Parts: sequence; C-alpha cells; structure tokens
Amino acid sequence: MASEDGEVVKNVQVIFRDYVSGFPKETDMEVRESTMKLRLPEGSNGLLVKNLYLSCDPYMRTRMAKLDIPGYVDSFKPGSPITGYGVARVLESGHPNFKKGDLLWGFTGWEEYSLITAPEACFKIEHTDVPLSYYTGLLGMAGMAAYAGFFKVCSPKKGETVFISAASGAVGQLVGQFAKLFGCYVVGSAGSKEKVDLLKNKFGFDDAFNYKEEPDLDAALKRCFPEGIDIYFENVGGKMLDAVLLNMKLRGRIALCGLISQYNLEQPEGAYNLMNLILKQVRMEGFLVFDYYHLYPKFLEMVLPQIKEGKIVYVEDTTEGLENAPAALIGLFSGRNVGKQVVVVSHE
Amino acid sequence: MASEDGEVVKNVQVIFRDYVSGFPKETDMEVRESTMKLRLPEGSNGLLVKNLYLSCDPYMRTRMAKLDIPGYVDSFKPGSPITGYGVARVLESGHPNFKKGDLLWGFTGWEEYSLITAPEACFKIEHTDVPLSYYTGLLGMAGMAAYAGFFKVCSPKKGETVFISAASGAVGQLVGQFAKLFGCYVVGSAGSKEKVDLLKNKFGFDDAFNYKEEPDLDAALKRCFPEGIDIYFENVGGKMLDAVLLNMKLRGRIALCGLISQYNLEQPEGAYNLMNLILKQVRMEGFLVFDYYHLYPKFLEMVLPQIKEGKIVYVEDTTEGLENAPAALIGLFSGRNVGKQVVVVSHE
Repeated sequence: MASEDGEVVKNVQVIFRDYVSGFPKETDMEVRESTMKLRLPEGSNGLLVKNLYLSCDPYMRTRMAKLDIPGYVDSFKPGSPITGYGVARVLESGHPNFKKGDLLWGFTGWEEYSLITAPEACFKIEHTDVPLSYYTGLLGMAGMAAYAGFFKVCSPKKGETVFISAASGAVGQLVGQFAKLFGCYVVGSAGSKEKVDLLKNKFGFDDAFNYKEEPDLDAALKRCFPEGIDIYFENVGGKMLDAVLLNMKLRGRIALCGLISQYNLEQPEGAYNLMNLILKQVRMEGFLVFDYYHLYPKFLEMVLPQIKEGKIVYVEDTTEGLENAPAALIGLFSGRNVGKQVVVVSHE
Repeated sequence: MASEDGEVVKNVQVIFRDYVSGFPKETDMEVRESTMKLRLPEGSNGLLVKNLYLSCDPYMRTRMAKLDIPGYVDSFKPGSPITGYGVARVLESGHPNFKKGDLLWGFTGWEEYSLITAPEACFKIEHTDVPLSYYTGLLGMAGMAAYAGFFKVCSPKKGETVFISAASGAVGQLVGQFAKLFGCYVVGSAGSKEKVDLLKNKFGFDDAFNYKEEPDLDAALKRCFPEGIDIYFENVGGKMLDAVLLNMKLRGRIALCGLISQYNLEQPEGAYNLMNLILKQVRMEGFLVFDYYHLYPKFLEMVLPQIKEGKIVYVEDTTEGLENAPAALIGLFSGRNVGKQVVVVSHE
C-alpha cells in the first residue's frame, strides 16, 4: 500500500471543533474528508497505521474540556482529530517494536489513517484467535481498568459483597465477571431492563437493578445488600455514590473508575455522606489505568483462557463507519449503548 | 479510701439528657450530684476508679446522635453520664492487669468516680515524668490518631507537602510536628490569629492561615502550595475538603480523621470536587484510632524521648471542674478551645 513516494489517499477524519461545556453534541465534532500521504516522514520513529476499530470511552468527555492536569491525558485539540484507543494495522514502521503488517492497540486518531508518534505506548497484538475489536475493550484499556481496579485497588477477598454501577458497560461487565469468578457476591445497576437482563442472564451477576426505576437508591441497595457492601466499583458518581456511602461495610473499599453522571454537569452534584468513610473506615481511591499497564501480560495470561473457555463473555455495541462515530460517542452519555461501544473504521 | 464495706461518697456526674440534632447546647447535659458506694460489686472483674482528667473530643458529637454502626463507639445513653477518654486512679481492681493505686487512661465516665467494666481496653500509665493530663491527648487517643493517621494512613515520604486543617487542635498540632520532624513541608489552617501564631511560632509549621479570613480557600491553598498538596490530614470537612481536592497532587493521600464542620449540620455540605480523586489518582481513607492501638508501645517509644528533648510540644486548654465540662465540650464546636481541651476533675 505505501509506496516509495507515498500514495496519497483520502482520509476521513472526525475533527474536534472546540471545548465543550455541558452535554456534548454530535456537532461538537465534524466529519471531514482530507487526504494523507501514505509515507512516514523522513527520520520518524513513529508508525503509519490504518485504523480498524475505535473505542468510545466515557473518560473522553473530560478531554473535551480544557484541562491541564499533570499525569492525566491531554485535552483534545480544537481543529484536530479526536484521539483515543483503537486497533490498527501497521503500514509503515520507524520503530523497532513494530514492523509492517503488525496489528496493535493503543492511542490513535479518529480517522482512516494515522501517524502514531508515540509507538512505545502501543501494544502489539499477538493473539488473533479472538475478535480483534476486543482490543478496544476487553483486551485493552477497559479490561485493564476492570482488572487493576478490582484486583489491585479493591483488594477483594472471597465471599465479599461487590456492587458495580454502570455494570453492563465496557468496564462494569468485566468487573462483575471477574468478581464472580473470584468468589464474590455481585450486584450491578444499569439504566434499562435490557441491561439488567444482561447482567443477570449473560454476565451471571447475583442480582441487578434498573436505577431509573428505583425511587430510593438507598432502599434498593439495602434490599440487595442487607449486610452492606464490601466493595464498590464506581463508574457513575452523584446520587449513586451518596447512596452507596450509606451502605458500605466496615473497612470497605471504593474504587473510583469514573463518574459518568457528572461529566456533563456545569456544576457536579455534591457527595453528602462522606462521614461514612470515617465511621466505617472506608478507603476510596481514584485510579487511572495507565499506572497498571505493566500488568498487561499477566492480565492476558489470566483472561485469554477464560475467554476461550467461555468463562468470560463480552458484549459490544458496534457502530459502522467513522461518519457515525460522533453519535456513538455522544450516545455513551445517555446510555444508548448496550455494552462496550466500538466504532468500526474498516474490516480491512 | 475504699473500705471493706464501701464508703458512700458524693459523685458529681455529667448526665447526657437526650439525643441531639443540630448544634449541641450545654443544656443537652446536666450536672447532677449523686452518690456512689466505693466498692466493686461482688465478683466484678472491673475497676473502681477516681477520675482525674477528662478529654473533650470532637468525635463525641457523633455519639450525641442515635447511631448504630458496628465497629464504631456506641451513642451516649440518655439519662446516663457522658463517657469518653480520661485519666483515672484505680481505687479497687477486679482485673489482673491493674492494682489499687495504678494510673490508667481509657474509657471512663464524666463523673468523680466510675466503675469501669471493660478494663482490658484501658492502658496502664507507666511513665509519670510527663504531665498526667497528656494521657488525655498527646499520649492518649489524639496522639495515636495523629501517629497512625499520619504514618500509617498517609504513607508519607520525606519532602512531601502536608496540609492539616484544625491544625492547632488536639490531633492537628501533633500531625504537624510529626510531619516536620519527618522532613515534610507543613502548612496548617486554624480559626484565629492566636492559633495561627501558635502554628507558626510554637509548633514550627512552615506556614499557616486563618480560614475565617480567607475569602477564597482555593486561592489560599494555591498560595501556600504552588505545586500542590501530597498529603491532607482532614479534621474539618465541608468547604475546606472541596478546596483541598482542587489542590491535591498526583497520587496524593487524604486521611479522614474528622469532619468537625459537619457534625452539627442537619444536612451536611456536599463535596463537589471528587472527580479530582480520579484525575490525580488520590486515595482518601477514613480511619478510626481503635484499629491502631496495638502500635501504642511503639508510639510511646518514639514520642516520649521527643517530649523530653522538647522536640514535641503540646498545648492544652484546661477547664477546671466537672461543672464546667459541658461548656468545654460545646466549646469545641465553635473553636473556643486553644489546643487540646482537657477537663480537670481532680488534682488528687
């Protein structure tokens, strides 16, 4: 595909227009056709890749605001393509870790072809006997967030009670399955009957409820956890966190993975029940998956056999085509997606 | 003093009237004169003690409400004396750990004489070359809270920046001094010029501010910590916690020791900035000192020489007489006390 001179190809891109406040809209992004010369710049140690699958993740909302937090990912750049996790095929490599034809997952652009300038942060895909799209979720960032968040941040013990919010999402469905396999009692919340059915019947949660149909979240949690919650895997924040704080057990742990209910509010909701952290000696810890990528080989070693034996399943919500990517991303914030939201750029 | 038959003596008591909501008042307690037979009940393995010093602690406010939290201390019993930490002299012992004449610190009643029914939770006082009243604070629960909270919960490293709220209080003044001796940069907040002077000039804090005179707590913290806060030792909650969350550094730690600003509110204030826990991977942990009492001998080994060498100082606010104890306790919530609030029952 790449020639000595560099073939010039059309390159459909999803451009980030400008910083967003409040609920993001599709029109905060623009799908634009540009062109790209399929050749690495002279002396580049980057990668020229063809993008295959892109990942829509709630944390991307935080990148739509102007942030400057050391150690956190950068904000999107107005006028440039959205960036995020994806699966791509290497067309040309200037980096010793990769060669032409390799598959990788890592940070790439929302466009057909990308120049990846930080290949050292990408992972070569070695196992292709699973759906490639899994590397946007189960076998990528979401899987690592579930693995590290549950096993490392929550320090689980067999028999403990685990509650997961946004439990049918990219991360939640995995945390629940990991916790069940580990020997915990697992309950999840989600925002529709369909998702609750998934939790109970597909992912094997012990119980689940639709938070939109519970007038009293505290009562719902007391019904599901008469003895209280040892571990809360937090994906949503807001009123759910406050209700959970009332129901934590002594020496419980809360892993803060995301607060999706808060990302689009001009002013976040308050958490009023923090005193329970003291009364029950609870640890609440925010974490970012980037800190745990050194565990990726260990994670794969655990999870690949589980996938092949059918012990871990994964539900994806697949959107075809870059032109539909903005709607797919925005849909996360209304809970439109059922399972992990993936955008297919190309089936090759 | 105790005779074979048991001398009957007058016993002034501070009685807890009924559960409190909102700001507690002196009249929620009643000072009453009763009598007591100075003799252990037949077969008791308890202790008959003469109380010398009583401790006024903010956590006692939580015990004025009807709570039922496993692992936390019980609520006060309406119609019975207030209970809390104190220093006492053993008059008669039914327990092998103690003998007549011993000094102890531990849970006792707000009265002249008490029958301690759980002597195994009391500590024998072995070192009397320091002020005895120190065992209500520096060498008692407050000291252990500062020691365990700082060294165990906060996992400090040399050179880190430490912020302490209610920093001139029973616990805060010690956390600051421990942190300075350990090699941290230490800033405290307090509620008067006098207290701020203490922090800077007596306790050796690097900086301090009067939160009542700061129109913008976020700005005050940014002024004191241009690079951010590694460790926050939380005694107050509310707006201060929210401002601190904005100023935490990557992988910071927050030890929740108390939330005194919230105890008297019908509805606690919200914490709006929890997203910072994720963005900066911060751990926030509530702790109770009871979990750490096994470290008491190690703590004494560290702190007794520091006291004798003048490296650790301790400021107490002493109130004479049980009849003034209710006012002393209530005063904690308006910040009337300067340093550790102690009530002297008897100088013997």
